[in-house]
Amino acid sequence: MARQLAALMTAAILALVTNAGQICAYDGIVEKKTFTLASFTIGGKIIKDVKIGWESYGALNADKSNAILITHYFSGTSHAAGKYKAGGAPGYWDAIIGPGKPLDTDKYFILSSDTLVNLNARDPTVVTTGPASIDPATGKPYGLSFPVVTIRDFVNVQKELVESLGIKKLVAVAGASMGALQAYEWAASYPDMVGKLIPVIASGEADGYQIAWLDMWGASIRVDPNWNKGDYYGRAEPVDGLSTALALVTLHAQHWTWTNGPSLGRKWAVDGKDPASCLTDCRFKIEAELAAAGRARAAVSDANHFLYLAKAGQLFVAGGGNLADGLKKIDAPVLLITSDDDLIFPTDAVNETAQLIRADGTPVEHVKIKGGRGHLDGVFAISQAGDKIRAFLGAK
Amino acid sequence: MARQLAALMTAAILALVTNAGQICAYDGIVEKKTFTLASFTIGGKIIKDVKIGWESYGALNADKSNAILITHYFSGTSHAAGKYKAGGAPGYWDAIIGPGKPLDTDKYFILSSDTLVNLNARDPTVVTTGPASIDPATGKPYGLSFPVVTIRDFVNVQKELVESLGIKKLVAVAGASMGALQAYEWAASYPDMVGKLIPVIASGEADGYQIAWLDMWGASIRVDPNWNKGDYYGRAEPVDGLSTALALVTLHAQHWTWTNGPSLGRKWAVDGKDPASCLTDCRFKIEAELAAAGRARAAVSDANHFLYLAKAGQLFVAGGGNLADGLKKIDAPVLLITSDDDLIFPTDAVNETAQLIRADGTPVEHVKIKGGRGHLDGVFAISQAGDKIRAFLGAK
Repeated sequence: MARQLAALMTAAILALVTNAGQICAYDGIVEKKTFTLASFTIGGKIIKDVKIGWESYGALNADKSNAILITHYFSGTSHAAGKYKAGGAPGYWDAIIGPGKPLDTDKYFILSSDTLVNLNARDPTVVTTGPASIDPATGKPYGLSFPVVTIRDFVNVQKELVESLGIKKLVAVAGASMGALQAYEWAASYPDMVGKLIPVIASGEADGYQIAWLDMWGASIRVDPNWNKGDYYGRAEPVDGLSTALALVTLHAQHWTWTNGPSLGRKWAVDGKDPASCLTDCRFKIEAELAAAGRARAAVSDANHFLYLAKAGQLFVAGGGNLADGLKKIDAPVLLITSDDDLIFPTDAVNETAQLIRADGTPVEHVKIKGGRGHLDGVFAISQAGDKIRAFLGAK
Repeated sequence: MARQLAALMTAAILALVTNAGQICAYDGIVEKKTFTLASFTIGGKIIKDVKIGWESYGALNADKSNAILITHYFSGTSHAAGKYKAGGAPGYWDAIIGPGKPLDTDKYFILSSDTLVNLNARDPTVVTTGPASIDPATGKPYGLSFPVVTIRDFVNVQKELVESLGIKKLVAVAGASMGALQAYEWAASYPDMVGKLIPVIASGEADGYQIAWLDMWGASIRVDPNWNKGDYYGRAEPVDGLSTALALVTLHAQHWTWTNGPSLGRKWAVDGKDPASCLTDCRFKIEAELAAAGRARAAVSDANHFLYLAKAGQLFVAGGGNLADGLKKIDAPVLLITSDDDLIFPTDAVNETAQLIRADGTPVEHVKIKGGRGHLDGVFAISQAGDKIRAFLGAK
């Protein structure tokens, strides 16, 4: 621990030296910041006081040419790297973001933002605008009066943030899962602003399979009468439906290598309480784990935000229109990172995306990772692609 | 149509000639029969008036040595072949059961039974005993006072049925999915009564992955307050939860080749009603199809029966104990039929089962089918294995 701390401090000092004169060199402690738009068109509707949270790692150089944008996954936040305080939880891609790491904070200014309708609306570190936000016109939460949002809306708000920092062009956009959808959308919609693209564990559209599964993800929320067609603020909330939805997402993002591992498999939830001894309260350990995970995540999540995110996912086709035309708009070189164990974005779909981006000559390097966690390999096993990321960013 | 009818009649006449003297030669019209046990131990509890439905195709020979038992899948019934009346729906494996077909009714007496706690408790053609049945002791449905049942219980009741017909040994037991679990259990628990085994699209136990998914399958029922911990008979029933559960099963049993096909994919449910135009009532076609399928199936299903079946699936290890020991008990030659597109029983799991049965020298022929429907290939594409089934049954 002391050695780790010492290494961290050394890195921090090196970063300070490297970026002499900068006051915001990256020492592993990050601060959540808020970006506000007084008014912005979302889903065709003018929304006032649009806020999203963001954080950054490393320093923006003088000509503002060293920025990389990180876009987050469905249940994620902007917390991609570092810690909010010593001893806090590191960001989800901390393995590849930091001094000397593949996304090297000694070279790059890396920024990461919360999306609109971020799932974790009750997480105090998250700043987002969505159905759970107060509508200034009524003083009450929007609920379903909030417009349906798209991945393009997420990107449009991020573009405002990026431009507010004086950045004209991003070195790269990188993101996992729903973050990859945002990355594709950036490159297809604003090709002049994206130098390179690192989409991880996702394909370039929601096909029928994803549309169907996203529908199933949110189904238990709609079954819960406390959801009440989205009108539940200030009363009993659809905790059961939301917990179940989040348990389902947790399982779907995993792989049987995990569920069948030595600590789960057919183990019982409670020693001595045979799952055969009653119907619902006698459980296997994997059931108890999923239920606990769902309930824990529900405590900081919002059910309407879940459904809005699922809809945004369903509506996604990179660049709008049809997939082939959308992916043709991508001209930035692509490092596509996927796992053949991914059960949310299957291999057939990501291979098709790679082939369609390549179709007009755009270079695509497709790297496969395998960490035994299915879709979540894109988070937990991302360091397997570290050298490829470093080389890809370093290439002229 | 006339030609088909003529062919059917010719087959029926041939069957009558072949089985001269038998009065029940198979003409494609089947009758649902009821088997009753005045009292039987299920889940360690004595249950009175246990009834299951069954049907048969072909004629039992004089020494009762030509019987094949068909065991059904999770949402299935005993209706494996033929029609209850002219113009009715054929049984789910009609493609392989009939005169001259791989499961040849000119040679074999093929019987098929409804399981205990059959899902389709409200289907008038189904006869089953479970939580929705009237408890003679109270005059009211059992609800959750019905004991937790296992695949072994299903098999034990089938054994009574088989023995009541004077059959000492089955030529084979064949079944798909949960039907394959019953087949494994027959061969492991009553090896002297099973000549050959044809398990289709399933492995020899529920591993952590299946346990977790079966939990998720029933989760929306538990979210629905009308489920009321199983006490809903005679009041509002958990139709929303059950419909959602059945929609989820429908999707899980499919494959992206189906969801992404030309009639589904990103098509809208209603022409002119863009799914982007509202949150929940503006849908894609695949969402509407799944919802309709779930609701239609819920109309004949019982929510408690669903949860009992899911539990039976979770508790399953062939022969009890651990998988390797259970599969060693299987001595009957095995024709294992699976699909690599199966997303419920993945290839890794079925391959392990084949390897463990083979471990002590039991012959296993493993045939792969591929019909673009994932798990459901075991029903819709079963005729791809027709020649293998015929040869397997014909081998000495």
